[in-house]
This record gives sequence, structure tokens and C-alpha cells, in this order.
Amino acid sequence: MFFQAIQTPGLAHVSYVLGDNGEALVVDPRRDLDVYLEVLHSQGLRLRYVLMTHRQEDFVLGVTALSLLTGARIVAGKHPITGYADLQMGERERLQLGRLFLLALHTPGHTPESFSWAIFLDSHPKHAWGVFSGDALLAGESGRTDLPDPERTYENAALLYDSLHREILPLGDQALVFPAHGAGSVCGGHIDDRALTTLGIERHRNPVFVLGRDDFIAHKLHERLPRPPYFSRMEELNLRGGSPLDRDPRTVPPLPPRTFRESSRNGLVIDTREPEAFAGGHLPGSLSIGMKALPTFGGWVAAPDTSVFLVMSEGVEPEQAVLALARIGIDRVEGVLAGGFGAWRNAGLPIERSATLTPSELQEHAERYQLLDVRGLSEFESGHIPGAHHAYVGQLEERLPELELRPEVPVAVTCDAGYRSGLATSLLLRHGFQNVSNLLGGMTAWKKLELPVEEGAPHPKETPAPREYPTGDEVYSE
Amino acid sequence: MFFQAIQTPGLAHVSYVLGDNGEALVVDPRRDLDVYLEVLHSQGLRLRYVLMTHRQEDFVLGVTALSLLTGARIVAGKHPITGYADLQMGERERLQLGRLFLLALHTPGHTPESFSWAIFLDSHPKHAWGVFSGDALLAGESGRTDLPDPERTYENAALLYDSLHREILPLGDQALVFPAHGAGSVCGGHIDDRALTTLGIERHRNPVFVLGRDDFIAHKLHERLPRPPYFSRMEELNLRGGSPLDRDPRTVPPLPPRTFRESSRNGLVIDTREPEAFAGGHLPGSLSIGMKALPTFGGWVAAPDTSVFLVMSEGVEPEQAVLALARIGIDRVEGVLAGGFGAWRNAGLPIERSATLTPSELQEHAERYQLLDVRGLSEFESGHIPGAHHAYVGQLEERLPELELRPEVPVAVTCDAGYRSGLATSLLLRHGFQNVSNLLGGMTAWKKLELPVEEGAPHPKETPAPREYPTGDEVYSE
Amino acid sequence: MFFQAIQTPGLAHVSYVLGDNGEALVVDPRRDLDVYLEVLHSQGLRLRYVLMTHRQEDFVLGVTALSLLTGARIVAGKHPITGYADLQMGERERLQLGRLFLLALHTPGHTPESFSWAIFLDSHPKHAWGVFSGDALLAGESGRTDLPDPERTYENAALLYDSLHREILPLGDQALVFPAHGAGSVCGGHIDDRALTTLGIERHRNPVFVLGRDDFIAHKLHERLPRPPYFSRMEELNLRGGSPLDRDPRTVPPLPPRTFRESSRNGLVIDTREPEAFAGGHLPGSLSIGMKALPTFGGWVAAPDTSVFLVMSEGVEPEQAVLALARIGIDRVEGVLAGGFGAWRNAGLPIERSATLTPSELQEHAERYQLLDVRGLSEFESGHIPGAHHAYVGQLEERLPELELRPEVPVAVTCDAGYRSGLATSLLLRHGFQNVSNLLGGMTAWKKLELPVEEGAPHPKETPAPREYPTGDEVYSE
Amino acid sequence: MFFQAIQTPGLAHVSYVLGDNGEALVVDPRRDLDVYLEVLHSQGLRLRYVLMTHRQEDFVLGVTALSLLTGARIVAGKHPITGYADLQMGERERLQLGRLFLLALHTPGHTPESFSWAIFLDSHPKHAWGVFSGDALLAGESGRTDLPDPERTYENAALLYDSLHREILPLGDQALVFPAHGAGSVCGGHIDDRALTTLGIERHRNPVFVLGRDDFIAHKLHERLPRPPYFSRMEELNLRGGSPLDRDPRTVPPLPPRTFRESSRNGLVIDTREPEAFAGGHLPGSLSIGMKALPTFGGWVAAPDTSVFLVMSEGVEPEQAVLALARIGIDRVEGVLAGGFGAWRNAGLPIERSATLTPSELQEHAERYQLLDVRGLSEFESGHIPGAHHAYVGQLEERLPELELRPEVPVAVTCDAGYRSGLATSLLLRHGFQNVSNLLGGMTAWKKLELPVEEGAPHPKETPAPREYPTGDEVYSE
Repeated sequence: MFFQAIQTPGLAHVSYVLGDNGEALVVDPRRDLDVYLEVLHSQGLRLRYVLMTHRQEDFVLGVTALSLLTGARIVAGKHPITGYADLQMGERERLQLGRLFLLALHTPGHTPESFSWAIFLDSHPKHAWGVFSGDALLAGESGRTDLPDPERTYENAALLYDSLHREILPLGDQALVFPAHGAGSVCGGHIDDRALTTLGIERHRNPVFVLGRDDFIAHKLHERLPRPPYFSRMEELNLRGGSPLDRDPRTVPPLPPRTFRESSRNGLVIDTREPEAFAGGHLPGSLSIGMKALPTFGGWVAAPDTSVFLVMSEGVEPEQAVLALARIGIDRVEGVLAGGFGAWRNAGLPIERSATLTPSELQEHAERYQLLDVRGLSEFESGHIPGAHHAYVGQLEERLPELELRPEVPVAVTCDAGYRSGLATSLLLRHGFQNVSNLLGGMTAWKKLELPVEEGAPHPKETPAPREYPTGDEVYSE
Repeated sequence: MFFQAIQTPGLAHVSYVLGDNGEALVVDPRRDLDVYLEVLHSQGLRLRYVLMTHRQEDFVLGVTALSLLTGARIVAGKHPITGYADLQMGERERLQLGRLFLLALHTPGHTPESFSWAIFLDSHPKHAWGVFSGDALLAGESGRTDLPDPERTYENAALLYDSLHREILPLGDQALVFPAHGAGSVCGGHIDDRALTTLGIERHRNPVFVLGRDDFIAHKLHERLPRPPYFSRMEELNLRGGSPLDRDPRTVPPLPPRTFRESSRNGLVIDTREPEAFAGGHLPGSLSIGMKALPTFGGWVAAPDTSVFLVMSEGVEPEQAVLALARIGIDRVEGVLAGGFGAWRNAGLPIERSATLTPSELQEHAERYQLLDVRGLSEFESGHIPGAHHAYVGQLEERLPELELRPEVPVAVTCDAGYRSGLATSLLLRHGFQNVSNLLGGMTAWKKLELPVEEGAPHPKETPAPREYPTGDEVYSE
Repeated sequence: MFFQAIQTPGLAHVSYVLGDNGEALVVDPRRDLDVYLEVLHSQGLRLRYVLMTHRQEDFVLGVTALSLLTGARIVAGKHPITGYADLQMGERERLQLGRLFLLALHTPGHTPESFSWAIFLDSHPKHAWGVFSGDALLAGESGRTDLPDPERTYENAALLYDSLHREILPLGDQALVFPAHGAGSVCGGHIDDRALTTLGIERHRNPVFVLGRDDFIAHKLHERLPRPPYFSRMEELNLRGGSPLDRDPRTVPPLPPRTFRESSRNGLVIDTREPEAFAGGHLPGSLSIGMKALPTFGGWVAAPDTSVFLVMSEGVEPEQAVLALARIGIDRVEGVLAGGFGAWRNAGLPIERSATLTPSELQEHAERYQLLDVRGLSEFESGHIPGAHHAYVGQLEERLPELELRPEVPVAVTCDAGYRSGLATSLLLRHGFQNVSNLLGGMTAWKKLELPVEEGAPHPKETPAPREYPTGDEVYSE
Repeated sequence: MFFQAIQTPGLAHVSYVLGDNGEALVVDPRRDLDVYLEVLHSQGLRLRYVLMTHRQEDFVLGVTALSLLTGARIVAGKHPITGYADLQMGERERLQLGRLFLLALHTPGHTPESFSWAIFLDSHPKHAWGVFSGDALLAGESGRTDLPDPERTYENAALLYDSLHREILPLGDQALVFPAHGAGSVCGGHIDDRALTTLGIERHRNPVFVLGRDDFIAHKLHERLPRPPYFSRMEELNLRGGSPLDRDPRTVPPLPPRTFRESSRNGLVIDTREPEAFAGGHLPGSLSIGMKALPTFGGWVAAPDTSVFLVMSEGVEPEQAVLALARIGIDRVEGVLAGGFGAWRNAGLPIERSATLTPSELQEHAERYQLLDVRGLSEFESGHIPGAHHAYVGQLEERLPELELRPEVPVAVTCDAGYRSGLATSLLLRHGFQNVSNLLGGMTAWKKLELPVEEGAPHPKETPAPREYPTGDEVYSE
């Protein structure tokens, strides 16, 4: 028996390779397939199946791509949405792999076509060894239920509750749970940071099993998670089994400073350095999105047809940054600044700066600043700096008019640590604000220093945007 | 939370790195420490503890070595044997690591000082997340109970039964089980090939939980496992926390054929190529031990002060072979044949050959051969070729006189596949046998072809060797 | 300035990456491009040009593939044959790369469109830093002149002599020489094993500079090099800039023994293990071609549309073997035996064996054997075992009838070491010979032992095959 | 023949592995030996000799360490200083390696015991293949002659001129030159950036061959190179063959922010992030030395017994930083900030900031700033911002009193790009300056923008410090 979990950094996505007797299946592969080919090859495993749990919203699948490359058959639960699968399995149908058996369990709620796959060590399914639970059951959490239709969050929460109690719970405490996402994902509210988990552990700690049905539904209704604009594009691609990697990320050309300036004139420049480095000097008009935030916020600021240009620290290879964007469908990275920001610096080209601020400095001179908190709404409500304005970073540009900030007065921007406020800082600079400071350490540092906070809704009260961004909240954990 | 299992190829040994909040512990490290340093460094984890479950018999520990290198404290259960630990923890004492807590559980039976370490996700130990079970509880098996004293196998089996029922079972079905050995180890009889397991899975499948106490003890008494001569040396080293790697395996010099011949005159030449290659041509007097068998059978034929010389296939780097021997305390590998056997071949130096035989050839001409089966006694008893002599490969040389084989008559040697018979073949050649054939595919192929077998004890009946090899059996799985 | 030579194992092909000021060019890339992408990416170099010296006959180029992937322009010397290039440069035209300048030098003789490219450190071309000499000038050798037309070897030798004296020699002793092939290549007769060389070193040691014009031409006429059947296919592909890799070599499926047997029934089974292992046991009908010989002899036995199946040692990943074949245009590797030969052995499937023989055994019992020497003709002529028949391994099957060997009488096969004789052994077995022995160490060992040899042509004298294999010789160095 | 140059990043040091017929030698190894063991092992080479060209001043040698590990003999030229060598070879003595021969050539001038080693392809030394030239002959440069005794720079320059003309030049234009240092090294003034070079190339471009003897000596006298304080310590260690690596760099513990603060109280905190990031926020009292500058400036600010603590960007592994310091003898790196500066930021711990300034901002508001140029004296003299004060960064602290800068008035610091000025910025902050700005892009950007410069000596004129820093200049190329 061979088993390996394959993490996708930044996305908190987990795919799996399961093998037995020389045969293997891969569950929910991402579109950059190198890691799967490498594992299968080094283990001498023949790929028989590419198994799906559900369409995914936060990254592009590599299901058809992997199938095409290897001849493996695509296996999904029987549902109209997964019509492109080679093998659509109905409820309780079994799939054999070596000496192992997988059992198809329909577990809708997160999405209608969600299937979980219980794994048994032999052909007499009594006590499951484990279950690939997709986004239905996560560590300490269950999948969000607002995605298929925000208007039907209630119904989907009920459906999910029933799915998990009826299909998953009976598998037994002993069953290992292999979810499609881990801590930090935007696919669930508060996913626990557990390297491994079992159904018994979840039974004692997971709201879906700890709470009653009504409480669970209420809990889900209260959940307000971000819905980045790229989600619908991912879904569209994934309903066809995703898409192969568009290009080798190593072919993105390094461009010398002047070429970079010319080429990027009509594109989007993303600076992946740390917030302090961005503050100390950056390309005018560039957006600050640190490497860790790229797999999420890249999708807020860039569309698939956006020409993206990257500024990175000297000596850092851009491959991971290009991949991070490609995984959320942004394929047109057209250049990276050769020699990093240092080359720009030495070329005597225009440099813009912003400022940084420590919590104690802000506390001392609070009156000098217009204060802007760009965290999610519920983060804001649970405690913010007195007097702070609020706009979620992903909505900052559209909400700027109603915030009535004055460009000539200094602005201090905060989030929980400095990455989202870094992005907000760069957005404000693009909108002509002249003096923008990023609060170093954000609310995390502010609270550690026990500086004053107040709770409650922002003034004026925000109307949650309707359909495409129903909740105003987000959980990106920095 | 960070968790990684680190397999030691060939030994079926598993050590673990567990981390939380920037702190880490390593459980039962082997003496070549590179992998631990690499994981800790790349994860940014500070090593706080080196945790022991028990002395180990089948490899040299790197406990004190890792502690010395990193400043981490050695933690062991409180027992006179583990007196060298920095921190000896009594039963039910707790060790904190980040947000995690480990609970010391005394689980003797395999060895008297065996401790298991339950892991809890928070400070209120109710439902364990997992348990480092050492060799007390293995996947589908429990640790052998004959090692401390073969005369007390019965008592130790009872002790182990009670340990596991009293200390481990109450941790709950949901608890992940992290044993020190996996399938293929000589530390347990029939360890299952499960990538991961939980206590609930074991409760349904493991003899120690499935059988009653008396049946379990009987089962353990029936267990006849090999006790290689190096076990006692490992134990001796490990009772001091093991020993650091003696030398960098990459410094073993490649020696050209004539130098190799001169240098190895008073040493032991081990040929790690496949059995067919050995048969096709090899150095006179060399022993055939394939790479997979090296971590076990290397310890049967070489002592710590044996000068070992290696013959490998061309292009195969000897590092893994040298490490395989070092892990069982054989440090004096003094050279490897430069250019592999091909260089010897081209140098016109003496070449010895043996023969190979397919099952159908043997079946057809059985009368021409003296037949020798070198598997473990219980393997032999459960089905052998009619008329076969028996001697376990590890005891072949000492038992050769009583077997009364005639050197001038062809011998056909079999095991289950060809590795142990390959070693036996080379031993017979060293003892002057002129025509020795290795049965390709061994009993595995023989049985697949449904050729006749007979069951039962060998003639004359073997007296199991007393203390140092109490059982006559072995489970090395090829 | 960045410079890296990239060797292709087995082919003795060398390609180059040259960079300056962030720009780079690649010279004569092979079709598997990973290594180039990796080097360029890690060095932060932007690929501007893919530079060609000439069509190549012994491997498939990746010129258009690399250009397509990176947008780099294809640069070749001006000649009708290289019409697909983006930039065709006439004699003495210059190409700038960073601060470097390359000068186009037409150096026909090996092939009509051969260009060399002198490299200068600045824009005033006085003393060359180096020269990419393609196959015109090699270390201690010059390119063979029989390839474009065996009937015009004389004229091409004269042309090459003049090219090198007129275009290359004036670059000066100080110039580094970067040829497209190193020692072991079939593209030149006796290429020296020099890690680096300069024009001054060549001037003192290379026949083209040491010999007079007439002597050099005579020397070239005397040169009898193999012309494997795949050469013309390579040429055809390369005249269009080669072809991208057909598939990721890691996707070749491992097949369990019985599936392997079924699938390979109408295909070609190649066994890459060492000759001794093949002798000790192998699949009936399989051909023995060791890993080192695969990049050459694979092309003798397989065509592009041959379905190839591989047998390897257990634990050896097939990636390199698949690549070795792909590099000479054999793309249809359809499976590899899962678990290596060991799995076949244990499955009880039919096994065929051949024999091995040491030189002294052969010497002692020479009368029992029909002796066959399968080296190149000139190797044979310079010294063979008295009484040996001769047939070059690449022509063995077609010449078998005229050799009049008797299948029921033992045959001893020799080459210089054991690889070509291994292949010949397997060919004879396929033709029904019942007792075939491979002479271990071949003529290399035979001569080391000072056993008797005789010189001269074989009896009956061989008529060199006409056009497509004009010489009957080969220089593959094992 | 096997040949590989092994670069040491940051030091511009080059060591070499040369092999033939299975034997190898390593030239001038550094103390971290992993790369040599890896190359030798993967190539199947047996290390016979560790060859020295001369004591080195800019890094710690691993000569005795490598010898101890492998049993290889230490070979050096015959000179009292190299008394620890196993084999001291007199002038023109020959060393055989496989089929190669090395010839000992005494080439003093850089240091008295400098030997070069000519390499010949066979035993009749006529035309050298190459030469290991140590620091005697470099690409476009020769070794500095001030190190043994600044008072005898003249005599040593003459000696070096004669050495190179008498011993090296006769080897011939064709000879490859393998120096111990490349571009960017502090061991020569203006080493060219050539990946490879030959004696013929040097004969046309190197001052030692292009200039006459007197002009060359004058050139050398004019050369004013830095003499960092660690040079004498390196020399002391290297006169005993260097020293093995003190600890595995991966064992430096990551420390959480508060622990880091406590532990580093009496140590030196070095921040390796880019200058802009340092400006945007850093630990109070920390010194800014970017990764590229660490192998040089680490030795200016830290002594072997200095406790060093590192601040790096999140996600960057400290191994290379620790190695960079170890290579210049700074072994006591006692911790790295876990989680990078981001963790400190979030912990709410004190943060200090400095400022950045673009050239045009400085040009516009020059009157507001005290201007400080921290480049080498000759860099300053060849063109600085009008009115700038001067102090070489390595001498800044000791020269601070005489500069008479006022801590309460803003200071703008420049070098050529931003690294040395970054270090100077952090030094000024430690000395109580309240407003310090780092000029982004430094004089490189200033000159690109064609802003005004003036040439000439600083006011007041600096007295070059006498013995231990004789010249006031430095060539670190950023």
C-alpha cells in the first residue's frame, strides 16, 4: 500500500496518491502535474484512475490533463455535472484498486455533485480504513454552503449536515479522513491545523458532529466567507475537468529594467516582496502582494487575460510565483524584473515609496491619520482601532468613493499583519493618495500591545454586496 | 502542526518528526541524521526533544548523536535502562510541545523499558490524536516477546497483552497509531502493509485485540522469529543512546579491480547485484546479498570489525549500500569495486559462476539434484518441494556438516524468491561445492506453477537452537 | 558571462548555454529540454537565440521546440538546408549577445551546411575567446566526411581540411574549442577524452592540423565508421529543426508480468540489465542492450514505429532508458516490466538462459565452440581469436545465412567487453541457437591475459555493404 | 578525464576537481566539503591528492579536513610555510594522476609560497593542457602584492611579474588557466568576468603581460585594495591547512521573537534582507548586510568569538547565510529569527526604521542633508556628489569622530548601489543618528541620471591608515 498527501502551498489544497499492488489513483489533482508524475514514477505505480470529489472553486483542476497524459480513467460520482468522467459511479458502487476497495458516497451540501470515497482494506466493507471527503468534511470544519447559490445557504447547510451524518459518520471513529483542503483555505471557515485526522477526532471536535442540526445550520448561515471573482472562472473550467498547464513557468522571461517598464505599461505589475521592502521603494503603480498571499489575492486583482509582470527579491526564482498564479487560472505572466528590485534601483528609474508605522507610533499620533481597516467584516466587528473606517481589501477600489477619504491627508492602513494592508496601501497610491502608511504587525501586534480596540459594525453600516460577494467577510489567514 | 514519518528503507523502520508552533521533537532517530536536519531546517523548526520509545535491536539509534548536534534534550520513559536520558518521565507524566501534549505510557512486553507516547491536541487529555507506539503495537501485529529472554516469552506476551489493553486501547478508536516498524521488519511476525493506521482499525484487525488473552499468548509462543547475531550488539549500543555515523558513506573509496583484489584478500566481499547477475559471473569467494537484503543479511555475515568490500552494478552509487550496513553497526566498508563487475570482467581477472534453474527444469530433472531449502523453519513446514533438505540460510554454514550434502553432486537451492538462496548459493561455493543452482523465483514461482509440495518438518527433525537462535524461523519478506 | 556545457549521456553529445548581461543562447539543444529551462531559469537568463551548427545525425534536435517554448529566435548559417531558421547568417556576419559577439564561419566538409561560431569578448574581433565548432572540429579528431554521400568522402575530406585551416585555425591558439560531440560519439573516429580543449592544443594533437592535406584525406578515406539505420531518420527530422519530446518519459506505464507478456507479444522487448544478469535468466525472445549501449544500439534494432517494452533491474527508474530511446527518435516505449526481472522470476513465467564463458575457459575448450566476433571490421582485423567468424552486431541478422553457423553446436560470442556480444547472443537465441555463450570481458580481457590473437581479414572476405552501410566498421566504445 | 570547477558564491572563490582513470585531486578546497564528496562519489572517483596553490586570506581552507576524511595526501609546493603537507614538491617536480601529469611551478609574488601547477596530457611535458594558477594569475588580473607586507608591495610586484613571465608564459597560448578566484573577489583589483580563459587570452588582455615590467609594478603600487580584519585570521588558520566546518549549518536554531530578543542582547544582530526592507522596518541595533555582501562584510563586523544572530526574509532558509559566515571563520551563529522579520512585526516588539531617498529627491533637497559617501577612497575620488563627506564603510565607526556629523541633522548615505550604504545606515543608527536615509541605487543610479559629480580627494584629506589597512580602497562589487 502506498499513500501520499500532496499539499499545494498557498492554496491549502491537498490531493492524494493512493496505490496498491502496483496500481494507483490520484484524487483531485491540480493542473501542474509534475509532482504526480514524479511520485508515480519513482514508486513504480501505474496510474489507473483520476478520482474526483467535486468541482473545486479555488484552483484549476488537472483531471483531464492527467488522464490524457497517462491514459488513466476519470472517475466521478454519478451526477449531470460530472458528465465528462469516463466512469460515473452511482451511490454505493465500488471501485477496486489492487487489494483495496473504494465506495462511492454522495455527500452534497458544499456542492450538489460532491462525492466522498470511503476506502476499505478488503472486499468486505465493514470498517473503513479512510475516506476522501473532498470539501464535505474538513478538519474541524465542513465545506461552506453558500457557493452554489448564496440564497440557498440554509438548504445546503441542512443537506450537508444530513450527508455527513448519514454517509460519513457510520464509517466509524477509526476511519482516517482525507479532506481536499487544510488550514488556511478559503473553502471553509475555520479549518483546524491538523496534519492528519480521523472520523473519531472529528466526531469530538467538528461543529457538524458536535452541534445539533439547527445549531449547525445557524452556524453556517452566520459564516461569511469571501467569494473572490475568480471562483466562477475556476468552476467553469473545472466543470470540464480543468485544464492543463498553459506553459512551463520557467519560460517566463526575465526582463531588464527598461524593457520591463516598456512591456508592463499596459499590464499589471505585482510586487511579491515583503511589505517593508515595498514601503522602502517600489515601482510606481505596482501592487504589493506577498508570495504567501499571491495564490489568493492574485485572483482578486488579475483576470485570465491580464498581462502580469512580476517584481521579486533578487535571487528568488519566479517559478513558484508563476505557478501560484497559474493555479488560479492566471496564465499571462509576461515577464519578471531581471535582477529584482535592485536592478531597477540601480537603473535610476522612478521609485515610489510608502511609509510604515508601528502600533505605538500610530497610537501616539492617531489624530494625524485617516484610519482604514481592510480585513473582513467579521474580523473588523470583533475588534478594531477606534475610529477606523472599513473596506475589505478585495472591495476597496469599488468602495473608495463612499469611504470619502481625502487623498492629501495621511492614511494609516491595517489588516491583521501587514499583507492585505500592503495591497491596500498600493491600491491607495494608485488612486492618488500621497501619504499612505502600512501598520506593521497590524491588529495582531496592536492587540499584543493591549492598545485600545472597539467592537461592532462600521459606520456607516455596510450593506453586504448582494450576489457575487454576499458576505463581506474573508478568512485569509496570514 | 507539522508531522512527517521518515522511513528507513530495508529496515522497515519508521521514525517521526512532530512539530508545533516552531518547536519539534524527533522519535527514535536512526544514526544517519541528515534527513532529520533537512526536514527541521526546511520547516524552520527548532528541535526541542529526541524522544525514545525503547531500545531497538535491529538498527543503531542516533539519539545521543542528534541531541549532541542540536542541543535537544533526550526524553525517555523512567526505567533504569534509559538512565542516559536527560529527562526520564514517569507514567502519565506530560511533555508539552507547542500546543500539543504527550503523555508517557509504560507499555512493557516487547522490552521492559518500552514506553508509548500518546499525543493530545490540547492540555485536557480526553481523546488522543495519536500515539507513538514503538514496537509495542504495530499495524496488524504486536512486538515480538522473545527478545529480552527467550525463556520468558510467555510472561512477556502476557505483559504485552496487558500493556496494550490497559494503556493503549483506552486512547480510543480515533487515535492514530505511529509504530516504529512497518511491514517487512524482523521486529514483528506479520506486520500489515498499511500506510497509516488507527487504534480503531487495529481493534478490529490486530490479534492482540481480536484474540483473547490466552489465545494471544499461545499465538506469541508459536511465533518463531529470527534473532540475527547483530541484535545483541545493537542493543548494547542503543542502551547508551546509539552512536553517531562513523564516517561519511561517500568517502568509501572506489578501488580498481587489481587493487580491490589485493585489498579484499582478508576481508569479506559482498556482491549486491541481482541473483541472476551473480550466477552469470562473480568474484570467487564473494557472497551474494542483494540490495534489499543487505540491511538484514549483512548483519548475519559481517561483524562490526569485518572489513567489507562491495561489488555493485556499474553506475550504481554505493552510498545506500554503505548506509545500509552502517545502520546495523557495520562500519568498516573499506572499498567498492570501481566500475562495477564490468571492470573486473574486462580486467581478465578470475570469474566464478553458479547456475540458475527454473521450476519446470528442476521438476523435470529433480533426481539430478540435492535439494536445499534455506527459508525459515515455519516457511519450510508450511510447504516445500518433496525431498528437500532444510537449513535456514543464517545457520547454513554451521549446519552444513549435519546436512551431509556431497560437494561433487549438483545442488539446487531454493528460498521463496531467490535472494536467500542466492546467499546460500555463494556460501556453498565457498565451501567447495562445484555445481550449485539457484532456483529462480523459488517457492513463489513453484507454487504459482502448482508443482507438488509437501508439508511438515524436515528429516531429520531439527532441534531448534537454544538461546541465541531460539526459534529457527524468520520472516524476512522479499 | 555565463557558460555551461550540457552533456547528453550515452550520446557523447554536448550542447552549450552561453549568457551575458542577462541574455543567453543555447547551441544545438537536444529534444528533451528540461535541462536548458532549468539552467536558464536558475541563472535568470532570457533566451534570445537557439544557435545551430549543423543538422545532426545521431540524435533528434530540439531547436524548433525550444524556440517555440521561449520565443527565442533560431539562428543558423545561411544555407538552403537551414531555411527554417528565423535568422540565417552569411559568412562573417556577426551576432551580438550582451557584450559578446559571435562570428559566423562556414565550415563544410562534415555536412555542407556546417557553420562554426567564433566568440569574441568585444566588438573588435581580434583574438577569439572560443568557437562552437559543431562536428567540424572535435577534440583530437574532425567530423567524419562520409555521411552526406559515401561516394564523395574524398571531396568532403578535402573540403573539411580547407574549412578548418582557412576558417578555424586563424582564430588563434588561445581560442577555446567547444565541439558538439565528445569521446565515445559515433560522429568521429577517435575523439579524445578531454574535458576542455583549445585550438592550440588541437594544433599540436589533431590529425587535421598535424597531417598534411593529402595525408589527412587518406586518413579520412581509411576511416570506416558505422552508419546506423536511424541516421537518415534523424537527418530528416533535424532538417526541420528536430521535434519536441513526444511524451513525458515518466508516463510509460509499469506493467505487471502477465500484462507485460500479453502487451509485448507483437513488440520488441529490450533488456537493459548487465550481460551476466541476462545470461542468468531473461524473457524468451528479449534482446540484451545494456543501458550504456541503448542510445546507440536501440536505433539498430528499433524503428520509430516499433512498440518497445523494457526489462530493467528492480528499483531502477526507466526514465533514463525511455529518454535514451526518445533522443534517437524511438518514441513508442509502451511499457516497462513492473518490479523488474524479479517480478517475472517470481511469477513462474517462462525464463530463457544463455551462458557466460571466461577467456581461460574458452581457451581451454575452444574446439567445442563456433566462435563469433561481432565487433567492427577494423577492430576484428587488428586482432581476433584464431578461427573466429566475423559479423558486425548491427548486421548479424542479415549476414547469418552466409555465416553458416549450426544452431545445435555451441557458439561463443565476443566483442570487446560483453555488451555487443550480449546483444548478438540474444539475437542468436531468437534465431533458434540453443547454446550461446557470451565471452565475459571479451577481447579486452582476452588480450590482458595475453591469449593468442591473429590479425587480418575474415574468411571469407566480407564485401563491405554498399551505400547505406558503406564501411562495415564501428567505433562504439564500451 | 573529468574536470569540474566549483564556485563558492559570494567569495568568487573557485576550487577544482580533476580526475582521470578513476583517480582525482581537489585543488584549494573550502572548509565545507559536501560538494567535493558529492562530485567524487557520483563520478566514482577516488581522491588521491588535495592540492594547494597557496595559503588563502579570504576564506578558510578545508585542506586538512578533506585529507582526514578521505585519506588523500596533501600536496603543496616546497616551502617552509607549507610544512604540514604530506608531499612537498620542489620546482619542476611532477605528480602523476591517471594518465595526466602535473608540474610544480614556483610563482611567488602574491604570497611567497605560491605555486602554480601545470597540467600535461601525457608524460612528455611539451604543450600544457592547463594550469592551476592560484592567485598568481587571474582572468585579466594578477594577485595583489600588498598582502605579505604592505611595505614590500613594490618588491612583490616585481617578483610576481618575473614569476608569471618566467614560469607561466612559456606554457603556451593554448594552455587553459584555472585561477583560484573570479570576478568580484577581493584578492585582485579588476578580475574579468570570464567563464573560462587561456594563457593566450591573458597574453593579449592581462596587464601583467600587456604592460612592461616597470609599468606593471607602478600599476600594482597604485592598486589600493581593502584588507579586512579577518584576513590575518584566515591566514593563521590556513597555515595549518585550514579547519573543518565547526557545525552543520542546519543546526542553527530558529528562535521565536521574544527568545531571539533575549538571546541576542549581548550578540550581534545581522539583517540580511534587502536595503529597502531594512529601511521599512528592522530590529533596533541590527546591522544591515545583504546576503551578497555577507561573505565579505560579515568579516568586517564580526570576530570569530562574536555571537551572531540572523534576521532574514520569511521562508528563506538560513543555511547559506550561516555557511557564508563560516567560510570566513565566523562560527558562532547562535540563532535565526523564526518566521523572519514578519514574526517580529506581528509580535508587537520594538521596530526601528530608517529612510530611503531617490537620486532626484536628494538632488532637489540636497541642502537638508549631511551627505556621506562610504565607498572606497578611489571610488570616491573618481566621482562623488558635490559636498559629500567620505569614510569607507569598514572604517566608519572609528572615523566617525573626525567626520563631525551631527546626529540630529538628517544624513543621506550613498555607496555605489545601496548595500554598503545600508550597512553604514545601520551603523549610524546605532550611534544615535535619528534620521538616516539610504540613497537607492547609489552612485550607479546618480550617474545614470547624469546628476552632477565632482572628482578629487575628500576634505579634509584622509591619511591612509598605516599597516593594517594600508590603502583606504576596496573593490567589493555589488
